[in-house]
Amino acid sequence: MSFTIIPKKNGLENVEGFFFDGKCAGFKKDEPDVGFIYSDTSCRVSAVFTTNRFAAAPIKHFKNYGENFETNFILLNSKNANAMTGQKGVEDIGDILSSVDLPLKNPIMSSTGVIGYRLDKEKFQKVIKEFDFSTKNSDALARAIMTTDSFKKEIALEVTLSDGKKFNIAAIAKGAGMINPAMATMLCFVLTDSDIPKEDMDKLLQGGVEESFNKISVDGDTSTNDTVMLLTSAKNPYSKEAFKEAINFILFELSQMILRDGEGANKVVAFEVNSAKSDEEAIKASKALSNSLLVKTALFGEDPNWGRIASTIGASGIECDEESLEIYYDDLLIYGKDRRELDSQTEEKAYQIMKQDSFKITCNLNLGQGSYTSYGCDLSYEYVKINAEYRT
Amino acid sequence: MSFTIIPKKNGLENVEGFFFDGKCAGFKKDEPDVGFIYSDTSCRVSAVFTTNRFAAAPIKHFKNYGENFETNFILLNSKNANAMTGQKGVEDIGDILSSVDLPLKNPIMSSTGVIGYRLDKEKFQKVIKEFDFSTKNSDALARAIMTTDSFKKEIALEVTLSDGKKFNIAAIAKGAGMINPAMATMLCFVLTDSDIPKEDMDKLLQGGVEESFNKISVDGDTSTNDTVMLLTSAKNPYSKEAFKEAINFILFELSQMILRDGEGANKVVAFEVNSAKSDEEAIKASKALSNSLLVKTALFGEDPNWGRIASTIGASGIECDEESLEIYYDDLLIYGKDRRELDSQTEEKAYQIMKQDSFKITCNLNLGQGSYTSYGCDLSYEYVKINAEYRT
Repeated sequence: MSFTIIPKKNGLENVEGFFFDGKCAGFKKDEPDVGFIYSDTSCRVSAVFTTNRFAAAPIKHFKNYGENFETNFILLNSKNANAMTGQKGVEDIGDILSSVDLPLKNPIMSSTGVIGYRLDKEKFQKVIKEFDFSTKNSDALARAIMTTDSFKKEIALEVTLSDGKKFNIAAIAKGAGMINPAMATMLCFVLTDSDIPKEDMDKLLQGGVEESFNKISVDGDTSTNDTVMLLTSAKNPYSKEAFKEAINFILFELSQMILRDGEGANKVVAFEVNSAKSDEEAIKASKALSNSLLVKTALFGEDPNWGRIASTIGASGIECDEESLEIYYDDLLIYGKDRRELDSQTEEKAYQIMKQDSFKITCNLNLGQGSYTSYGCDLSYEYVKINAEYRT
Repeated sequence: MSFTIIPKKNGLENVEGFFFDGKCAGFKKDEPDVGFIYSDTSCRVSAVFTTNRFAAAPIKHFKNYGENFETNFILLNSKNANAMTGQKGVEDIGDILSSVDLPLKNPIMSSTGVIGYRLDKEKFQKVIKEFDFSTKNSDALARAIMTTDSFKKEIALEVTLSDGKKFNIAAIAKGAGMINPAMATMLCFVLTDSDIPKEDMDKLLQGGVEESFNKISVDGDTSTNDTVMLLTSAKNPYSKEAFKEAINFILFELSQMILRDGEGANKVVAFEVNSAKSDEEAIKASKALSNSLLVKTALFGEDPNWGRIASTIGASGIECDEESLEIYYDDLLIYGKDRRELDSQTEEKAYQIMKQDSFKITCNLNLGQGSYTSYGCDLSYEYVKINAEYRT
């Protein structure tokens, strides 16, 4: 089956059946900090959540509905994660959602921000009264979930099937730091009007997350609130093949935006590990590279110090051999059988590659068939500044 | 058996039978960069090496002697790790050591510095000719192995047994960054004149390393060259109990000096995890805390943001429960059953605790009997600067 996919402007607003907005409840200064997604029909929903054992109250509240429930309302906020707030944190969500003057079906909530504080219910109840639930303002919604993000992350696709019928899929995300190969401190909401069955929603969402958010690392930490959610209003046709390609594209692009917005990050680097003993070993080595502070600071310093790459692989606990190892920066062989010490010409070429906004470091172990690519960024003064000062 | 231990000035110079010095071979500017340890008798030797798969050439060279060999000479250098240099790197060591004009027995070498370059044999051969092997200048030796260290690390103890007989034990170390709970980018040489049997040397050195260098973390990376070595001239008596206490003290103190000298570090923090399901789980959680970038930056910012402590424990993969968890900063309860949200008074107290040069963060999981303490430091702008610029 053939299909065409084209990008669209105005993000979530393309998707039929959904309404959304964001407003300032006073948690931020004159910027949206609370938003909603409302659907005029009840929606099938799938979600992938954090693996952190201290999952935040909104995640517990969601899971209380059990499997296969439908919903028509999500309330979102930033500045307070509603995490480590116990049973009271879950009850607060119910109290806040009960003030929404709509025929709600299993309403849910999603929060990001500081851990350890109860939500200010009055401020929520007040801002909820200001919402017009027939608005389509995805820009305000996307900004309402931003914390340390320096830019808004939103993307929309229109998919045309071979019979000329169309469906839409679009998403917003937040996330800038604390992004780890285990999906962290990020929220992502994917809306579609494609009539995708629940089983495929679960499978394609999980698969897409594996190939996107689970492959990026900003600082190796994982949070209490991470959520990737998919909702459908089911107003338009479905094709599995087309939907899979579209959602994978959307999730991957959003993950790269998050990485590029990594707190204080200046460049995005792909760490491709090939010919490891197994895929598991390739994953281990690739993620060790994208998480290593010494690699990250060398990227920031644009120093072609491949010894840190080698040392990190050697320390990652995988099978490796300095005789068979090869390291490339983009297409430049920087270490291998025929290149040991770095001559000044190669060093200059490597430096030019490292000056780019993004490039690839490839490590061929030449020991087996395992391969994996993860994505990381550099570590700058800005990262330390942002995270030393965050919360105030 | 009773004994007394007193600290001594002049470090290694107290230990009978050893000679040492450091000189500038031109790798550093007007600072010692090559040094030696020579003994007038042949010495039993024990060593604990890096677990990095790309162990450097000096480690391969050492291991080529097999088990239970004796030595009377170590050549040390900084600025070049002689790592990732293949078989040629091992042969270079042999060539360099053969130029030493002494009756050598199984001479060894130990290097630290940049990975991926062959040693400059001519410069080594030239500086070796300048050495006087009857010198006792431990200050010059200790400085010859320094890289990003901001101060020299040396310590000496005199042990008096109950019969009035004495032995000496002393050590030098280098290390400032890249120190991980798996012993990294550090060298440590312990010399003694106590007649300790080889079997006890191995056991007490390994045990001492577990309780010191393996408990500290600067940045979670592990290197190709880490070495802790113990040599004895066996000229004085031995008591296992006294020796164990002395070597444990020395290794622990040196590990704390390395941590305090962590690249750009301003404070040292103990991460004590108690009442975990098992010791293994306590180790996992404690090391996750001392390695977390978000915890480290919060320490630098002196921000009592305990949510990052909780989140890191939740992400560490261990059994935990937000209802039973308690977090203390020194003796101040900051999260627990009776303290959820941080009031401004507690926050001010926490801030005062965090302003100290060193303090303790205790996490009681209240789930079992497992406990462990690791030691970490903050992450500052300086760390990024040092590591973005290192190598030049």
